[in-house]
Amino acid sequence: MTLQEIADRLGCVLAGDPSLDIGRVAGLQDAGPGDLTFLSNPKYLDQLPATRASAVILGRDVAHAPPPGCAALRCGNPYVAFARAVGFFTSGAPPARGVDRLSAVAADALVGPDVSVGAFVTIGPRAAVGARTIIYPNVVVGAGARIGDDCVIHSHCSIRDGVAIGHRVILQSGVIVGGDGFGFATDENGNHLKIPQHAHVVIEDDVEIGSNTTIDRPAVGETRVGAGTKIDNLVHVAHGVSIGRRVLIAAQVGIAGSAVIEDDVMMAGQSGVNGHIRVGRGARVGAKSAVLQSVEPGAFVTGHPAMDHTAWRKASVVFRQLPALKKRVEELEQRIAELEEKLANT
Amino acid sequence: MTLQEIADRLGCVLAGDPSLDIGRVAGLQDAGPGDLTFLSNPKYLDQLPATRASAVILGRDVAHAPPPGCAALRCGNPYVAFARAVGFFTSGAPPARGVDRLSAVAADALVGPDVSVGAFVTIGPRAAVGARTIIYPNVVVGAGARIGDDCVIHSHCSIRDGVAIGHRVILQSGVIVGGDGFGFATDENGNHLKIPQHAHVVIEDDVEIGSNTTIDRPAVGETRVGAGTKIDNLVHVAHGVSIGRRVLIAAQVGIAGSAVIEDDVMMAGQSGVNGHIRVGRGARVGAKSAVLQSVEPGAFVTGHPAMDHTAWRKASVVFRQLPALKKRVEELEQRIAELEEKLANT
Amino acid sequence: MTLQEIADRLGCVLAGDPSLDIGRVAGLQDAGPGDLTFLSNPKYLDQLPATRASAVILGRDVAHAPPPGCAALRCGNPYVAFARAVGFFTSGAPPARGVDRLSAVAADALVGPDVSVGAFVTIGPRAAVGARTIIYPNVVVGAGARIGDDCVIHSHCSIRDGVAIGHRVILQSGVIVGGDGFGFATDENGNHLKIPQHAHVVIEDDVEIGSNTTIDRPAVGETRVGAGTKIDNLVHVAHGVSIGRRVLIAAQVGIAGSAVIEDDVMMAGQSGVNGHIRVGRGARVGAKSAVLQSVEPGAFVTGHPAMDHTAWRKASVVFRQLPALKKRVEELEQRIAELEEKLANT
Repeated sequence: MTLQEIADRLGCVLAGDPSLDIGRVAGLQDAGPGDLTFLSNPKYLDQLPATRASAVILGRDVAHAPPPGCAALRCGNPYVAFARAVGFFTSGAPPARGVDRLSAVAADALVGPDVSVGAFVTIGPRAAVGARTIIYPNVVVGAGARIGDDCVIHSHCSIRDGVAIGHRVILQSGVIVGGDGFGFATDENGNHLKIPQHAHVVIEDDVEIGSNTTIDRPAVGETRVGAGTKIDNLVHVAHGVSIGRRVLIAAQVGIAGSAVIEDDVMMAGQSGVNGHIRVGRGARVGAKSAVLQSVEPGAFVTGHPAMDHTAWRKASVVFRQLPALKKRVEELEQRIAELEEKLANT
Repeated sequence: MTLQEIADRLGCVLAGDPSLDIGRVAGLQDAGPGDLTFLSNPKYLDQLPATRASAVILGRDVAHAPPPGCAALRCGNPYVAFARAVGFFTSGAPPARGVDRLSAVAADALVGPDVSVGAFVTIGPRAAVGARTIIYPNVVVGAGARIGDDCVIHSHCSIRDGVAIGHRVILQSGVIVGGDGFGFATDENGNHLKIPQHAHVVIEDDVEIGSNTTIDRPAVGETRVGAGTKIDNLVHVAHGVSIGRRVLIAAQVGIAGSAVIEDDVMMAGQSGVNGHIRVGRGARVGAKSAVLQSVEPGAFVTGHPAMDHTAWRKASVVFRQLPALKKRVEELEQRIAELEEKLANT
Repeated sequence: MTLQEIADRLGCVLAGDPSLDIGRVAGLQDAGPGDLTFLSNPKYLDQLPATRASAVILGRDVAHAPPPGCAALRCGNPYVAFARAVGFFTSGAPPARGVDRLSAVAADALVGPDVSVGAFVTIGPRAAVGARTIIYPNVVVGAGARIGDDCVIHSHCSIRDGVAIGHRVILQSGVIVGGDGFGFATDENGNHLKIPQHAHVVIEDDVEIGSNTTIDRPAVGETRVGAGTKIDNLVHVAHGVSIGRRVLIAAQVGIAGSAVIEDDVMMAGQSGVNGHIRVGRGARVGAKSAVLQSVEPGAFVTGHPAMDHTAWRKASVVFRQLPALKKRVEELEQRIAELEEKLANT
């Protein structure tokens, strides 16, 4: 693909040889001749002069200048342009169209046109799979589950009975949607009685869920993941949780039962949210934080328990100094005792 | 089902129309006409007057009164009654009785009467599956593994060679029992030599294990999960761990090698226990806590490192104030220096 | 096996009856007559006199003496000797040689000699599996993926398209290698645009990866796990991460995108590393720590944020005392105010 074609498709302003042939997209440091690279995070600005790429996607700030011999593609959001450019040069290899003869599709399941269903896939009674959806090998779709159009369900996913999945949803491998929530009532002898978990789970359109993440089913009500939300690997979403739209949830986050995560929230890796609380629209949760109480919309919280992020940072600085601070208090006690004695003697 | 039938089956005292037809169980806020709801956690007491349910399960405290037109079912433990009521109205759809023709059952495996074995299930040589046990699609039961009666093994579980599973055990999807423990001996060159992990794993009766949880096998001795214990999703139980009876372990907990968790312990989400230590009977571990030393029976610990829960809460309050506290110490140093100077000059 | 044979194979010095028959290896407390045990961690020294084992592997310190009637096998590294001795007495039961007739192997896949491929395994187009490699049931090997010689791939692993796996690699059950990294570019409307993740993932020789761990694929560059590295269960390795050689990563660790973990690093359970930072050669990360900035080679860091381990331990001690420390500051303020008043009046 020529640089001009790439510039046109990305809507970038090109400064450089428009006939240059580009073969792939690569990182600033790894790129060589024939490669397109990008600079989005200013943190990597000092790597820009040394790149060996043939072209670089940049923002509009002319202070960010490519080295001699490297063309520039300028636009408002270089990261979005990079995301699209990657798609020009790479593509997966989905299983062949059609339903593999080594699958087990129930007689009364509805399978849409132009699907790909791999080997050892089970599609249960009354389940439905939409048009053009790709199901990789060894996936289990339970009885009555529904999957929309243009979805990609990778190997080893379990979509349990009755789960509803929208259009253009991507499940990475090993995702489990609709496993039983962790609900028990403890009797007078301390035995834990299972509360049957048979209510609804809804995954809305354009959601992506990472490898081995688990989304549980509640006893009553529903568990819901809103449209456009993206969830990373090994995340736990408990029964009855409601996640809004365009939420970003990084790896190994845990969200306890019946919590509400509003639209546009961002949760960093290994953080957790208590049950029955609310994280307000657009709020951010720092890495490894434990959110024990509801969070206001737009807030940024960190720590265990989670508090205002800036307050946490400042308190963390003093935390390191605690042994010294304690010593200073001890010295003060010494000095004040001496003063008191002196004063008593005068 | 009429309200009278429900009251009789739950052993509740009914105040309301005994002939009322109930169609499902729902949460306080979601319930409408024809629904049965419940109040167990007093936190939700203020939602009670606004419920649109036809009937509500309540405790014996008459101060908790349903709104007009809503019947009351009173009993000693409304949460247990709710758990049982949910079961009256919902039911899963297990795979059909029998062994699916697309499974791979070893010739010398013992499969009990009235089992359901789904498609693409492997049951290895000398393995045994008890009566009425349900095995969902794509489960692997290793050589010599034993599963008791009336178990439910959901899709994609791996029950590795020789693992012993009791009666009425429920494994949610993706559970791995008997994977090799993380055991290596490091030689003088820094290379890590694998210690073969081929000893026993025992899951006792009435245990439930959540989606994608992993329970490892040790080199010597055994890993054991005691009767009636319930484990949530994405939990790690290392090799040689011993978990007692009726323990509750929430999602994403990690328990390191050879730790002992005694009966009736409760561990909140994302907490962790160090190797080779003991958490005493009935102890509680707070969310996201790191238990580095053994915990006394009945204690409640939180934090990193875990300490008495109340002490942790009080220290956490002061943590937020650390920058202010430091400033106060600086001011004290200033004031005392002034006093010392004044006193030196007198 | 006689004690003399064991001593010879382990290169240990034997003190005791060389003709003694040993039947298995067991822990110090569990061992009985006919068992071989070991003492490596001095923490368990007080269990040594009470062991009922017939023989014990010990270091060269003669102060560590077995009880009467128990033979001693002495060597420089008793833990390595134990690791090897375990292998003398236990062995797994791999699936039979050959390719199971219920598998789906692409016509153009290359399968080496003497492999074992279990039931319901998919091997995609152009994939390659090396000699003597064992693939347990329900594994999915994607298009173009390569697996070396003498590997063991346990049940339910997903080796996604194009992933490269070296020789003698062990994947425990449910491992996912090559799932899409969590990469999105957010447009001006707050929608998250997927960045296609189709670049390389390389697992070098002699790596072992624990159950349900996930290793992601990047958009550009590669994700790499170095030779001899061992990773425990439920670990998250994000896209573009580079892990060196002989690294030990305990359960539930998370490593964010493009982080570099150098050779011989040790990360304890539930710890996490921020994206785009470097953990230097031989560094140690304490349990549940959040590494937010790069770590020097050889350092030992703990805490959230991670800091020098000893400094963290000392600060943690004072953390517990914070309410008392605050009280002492208040008392100082009181006393100094009194002094100031007194002095003002003189």
